[in-house]
Amino acid sequence: MVGILKRTLRLQTALRLLSPHSPSSSTVTARLSPLHHRRPFLPATSWQFGVCCRKLHNGVEMPKPSAAAAPDRLPFSTITQEDLAFFRKILPGRAITDADLLESSNVDWLKSVRGSSELLLRPQTTEEVSTILKYCNGRNLAVNPQGGNTGLVGGSVPVYDEVILSTALMNNILTFDAISGILTCQAGCVLENLSLYLEDRDYIMPLDLGAKGSCHIGGNVATNAGGLRLLRYGSLHGTVLGLEVVLADGQVLDCLVTLRKDNTGYDLKQLFIGSEGTLGVITAVSILCPLKPKSVNVVFLGCETFEQLLKTFQLSRGMLGEILSAYEFLDSECMRLLNTHLKLPNPISDCPFYVVIETSGSDPTHDGEKLHNFLEEAMTSSLVADGTVATEDSKIKALWSMRERVTEALTHDGFTYKYDISLPVERIYQLVTDMREHLGDRAKSVVGYGHVGDGNLHLNITSPAKDPALLAAIEPFIFEWTASSRGSISAEHGLGLKKRNYIYYSKPSQAVALMGNIKAMLDPKGILNPYKTLPDDLK
Amino acid sequence: MVGILKRTLRLQTALRLLSPHSPSSSTVTARLSPLHHRRPFLPATSWQFGVCCRKLHNGVEMPKPSAAAAPDRLPFSTITQEDLAFFRKILPGRAITDADLLESSNVDWLKSVRGSSELLLRPQTTEEVSTILKYCNGRNLAVNPQGGNTGLVGGSVPVYDEVILSTALMNNILTFDAISGILTCQAGCVLENLSLYLEDRDYIMPLDLGAKGSCHIGGNVATNAGGLRLLRYGSLHGTVLGLEVVLADGQVLDCLVTLRKDNTGYDLKQLFIGSEGTLGVITAVSILCPLKPKSVNVVFLGCETFEQLLKTFQLSRGMLGEILSAYEFLDSECMRLLNTHLKLPNPISDCPFYVVIETSGSDPTHDGEKLHNFLEEAMTSSLVADGTVATEDSKIKALWSMRERVTEALTHDGFTYKYDISLPVERIYQLVTDMREHLGDRAKSVVGYGHVGDGNLHLNITSPAKDPALLAAIEPFIFEWTASSRGSISAEHGLGLKKRNYIYYSKPSQAVALMGNIKAMLDPKGILNPYKTLPDDLK
Repeated sequence: MVGILKRTLRLQTALRLLSPHSPSSSTVTARLSPLHHRRPFLPATSWQFGVCCRKLHNGVEMPKPSAAAAPDRLPFSTITQEDLAFFRKILPGRAITDADLLESSNVDWLKSVRGSSELLLRPQTTEEVSTILKYCNGRNLAVNPQGGNTGLVGGSVPVYDEVILSTALMNNILTFDAISGILTCQAGCVLENLSLYLEDRDYIMPLDLGAKGSCHIGGNVATNAGGLRLLRYGSLHGTVLGLEVVLADGQVLDCLVTLRKDNTGYDLKQLFIGSEGTLGVITAVSILCPLKPKSVNVVFLGCETFEQLLKTFQLSRGMLGEILSAYEFLDSECMRLLNTHLKLPNPISDCPFYVVIETSGSDPTHDGEKLHNFLEEAMTSSLVADGTVATEDSKIKALWSMRERVTEALTHDGFTYKYDISLPVERIYQLVTDMREHLGDRAKSVVGYGHVGDGNLHLNITSPAKDPALLAAIEPFIFEWTASSRGSISAEHGLGLKKRNYIYYSKPSQAVALMGNIKAMLDPKGILNPYKTLPDDLK
Repeated sequence: MVGILKRTLRLQTALRLLSPHSPSSSTVTARLSPLHHRRPFLPATSWQFGVCCRKLHNGVEMPKPSAAAAPDRLPFSTITQEDLAFFRKILPGRAITDADLLESSNVDWLKSVRGSSELLLRPQTTEEVSTILKYCNGRNLAVNPQGGNTGLVGGSVPVYDEVILSTALMNNILTFDAISGILTCQAGCVLENLSLYLEDRDYIMPLDLGAKGSCHIGGNVATNAGGLRLLRYGSLHGTVLGLEVVLADGQVLDCLVTLRKDNTGYDLKQLFIGSEGTLGVITAVSILCPLKPKSVNVVFLGCETFEQLLKTFQLSRGMLGEILSAYEFLDSECMRLLNTHLKLPNPISDCPFYVVIETSGSDPTHDGEKLHNFLEEAMTSSLVADGTVATEDSKIKALWSMRERVTEALTHDGFTYKYDISLPVERIYQLVTDMREHLGDRAKSVVGYGHVGDGNLHLNITSPAKDPALLAAIEPFIFEWTASSRGSISAEHGLGLKKRNYIYYSKPSQAVALMGNIKAMLDPKGILNPYKTLPDDLK
């Protein structure tokens, strides 16, 4: 009874926050660190090794054991003094060979993959990228295109000695049409910088990620990044209107259209969205940006069961409708890691599941009323056990950090095996439960969080140290489980180096063969981001 | 003064309609014919002939004069008795050779393009499509994939004697997930039937077209149809989640994913969206459907200038925000044709420009308030001269018909030269004005209407009869004008037969060459929908 009263009171407090006259208070007192930090590095480790079993997809046998391991180096040329002289001439001061400066470009942010490139090129223009690729293609030098290097599947760093082609200095905004909301910019613009630029002009980017402070828009497009706003604004396949891409032979493909509609022939830019730099180097992007909402609210709720969490999701879709802009979740294990490693206190009472709901709309009063009605219904129907609401910017950030900083908390928990699974939404937590049961006490933590609205689960498993036996217990179990539910083994992270050989769990052999044909057509020497995305049996 | 009073009163009447207590009245008294009619045929004509000048795009010369004319027949095989016997065996009763039955499949709905196919195949399953294509590819028989045959650029009918492969009998809904809103169905489902199916389940299709009563979802996807809801729900590149496609050699490519996110390799389905049947035959579609809005309002407004119409658009984006679902326009010439040919009376006073605004949302009261505030602001700032509002379904349809039936009205006005242009939104009406001035009294009517929110103008020019001199005055003027504004010469209709050779006005030569490579890779014999989409200089 006291519990119910406490809950009701807290929610009443929360609901009061919806009133335009009392937006300044909040139950959130979480200690905050800067939101848009560069993700910290884990202790260095060498390759992950996977053991891949005989799972069949359309009769295709998985290629080999240790499928995540690096394949042998392909017979590309190695950099000579003549090569260096050429690059130093065309990129004065921007052809980097200093080992210390190369270090951070050779290692991914998880420090799980390490290359040994001896050359980092930092072009500023499309023409420079074209000259570089034409030369590399002629010389048979492999190239690793690199944006903000925030990828999670080993796609953004060299595997051996590939030349690193960084977009870091290609960071100019080219045009912005304030009537249509269409932005064009170079590929190396940092997502957060674009967001800030747009917010000054009453627009926002259609995507938002935890890595926004580092990731480049070109990398976002190359990996078809999903993130926190996909539920509302859709995928980059819909919002990216145009691309400029340099092909492997140095040809510049100008598809940098700035129109919402263009049905003149095949939509070639789509090929490069999500191809992880294996088909071309994206040098410029045009993207449709939504108007900045006039009203944003964030709610943090607790649910007793995942079923209730899903019912709450359905309720929110109906009652929040067009203002619902995010429906994210984390489980109590995530909360434990946030408490333990980042000292972030739980803003509500302990529950098995937590939800972050964001609304954004054009009318604060209407949005507040919709949210009020939704919360009242969620409480009275006992879908939700506890909750708190934030309307102020700092409080909103504090609540969001409970979701966004789970990744960071995990890095403090131990060696992390990360999975990014797409499933029919009603199945997403069953995988976590089954995995926990399957692993027993072999894992330190098994946590689930992610984007409920998109059917996207981030399942992470930690261990005190790298543990091949644990990995052998996780894989292929997780891939088989996912395939049996017609899910995707990579919802938004891509395949990169780590997941390339597991592609057959989600794609039939005909599709993979067609990918190989497209790769051969666009990059016949295979110089662009080798060892990534495509499985080894196509090499 | 009386005029202002009349306007104000009419708008007050209109605004009253927003009240939930008086939704039954309306100023709209338009005589309605069934909304979802099959479009009527024009009197039969033969080929359109265009004269194409030397316009350069990236230094590429346009291929030849009469660029819209049919090229010579390519050296495909012709149907033999053995072929007929084979098709009759695999498709008992569904291999049609009767000339009368073939007639409507050989002619497009505008009756502007006529083929001479002697065989119409009506498969029911993907396996049958696969068998057909494998056989045709082996025999070097050209194939014209056909959905509802509602295309406007001569893409949906044979040019010579291609075998017509109709999806009409592939009309089963396969699955619908009421939690996620993901529908999978065969390609031959009629768009309107899908809409009705979904509406019973509280969902809607993410696209809506005037041709919904006839067009097939497979054809919609193959042509990347835009339509009336694109402003709100985005393009098919974002909403189509998966496709099943049969390739030219009969291989079935299963990309029929039913997940919102899947980053396992290249997004191959994108290649087929908008490729107009030239790369494969779409046999099944999975698509993300939005929840059915609980509240829909439609407003019909009049503006004195196009500048005011654009300012009203900007105002509506800000004040209607997330509930704005369409912003369409027509000019006074369109209204004249609606009055004259269809006897549809103007629901408001005469104005140079008319706007149809649709809102859809989850809360009738909130939506009504937003609309009220917007209309009040639009009136008091004199952006809008007159207007009326509808909240009832029949009245909503009546107002929509003023926009949707312009195409029909044009068919009664004479021979129509149709253009579908994408431009930066602030430029779209300038093209109409310039065209009128350019043509002088050579044209009967020059009318402009379309999707303001998408920057998409439908410019139509009528003449008492087919008039090569008039056409020579329109083209290449219109394409050069569009290219000089960085527009697209086909926003949503595609290139088909009629526009294929004008592709260089909107695509650089590298992109067209890459299209040719993709075509050669997927359909090496070129049997799929020959003479369409790709320019003749690639043949």
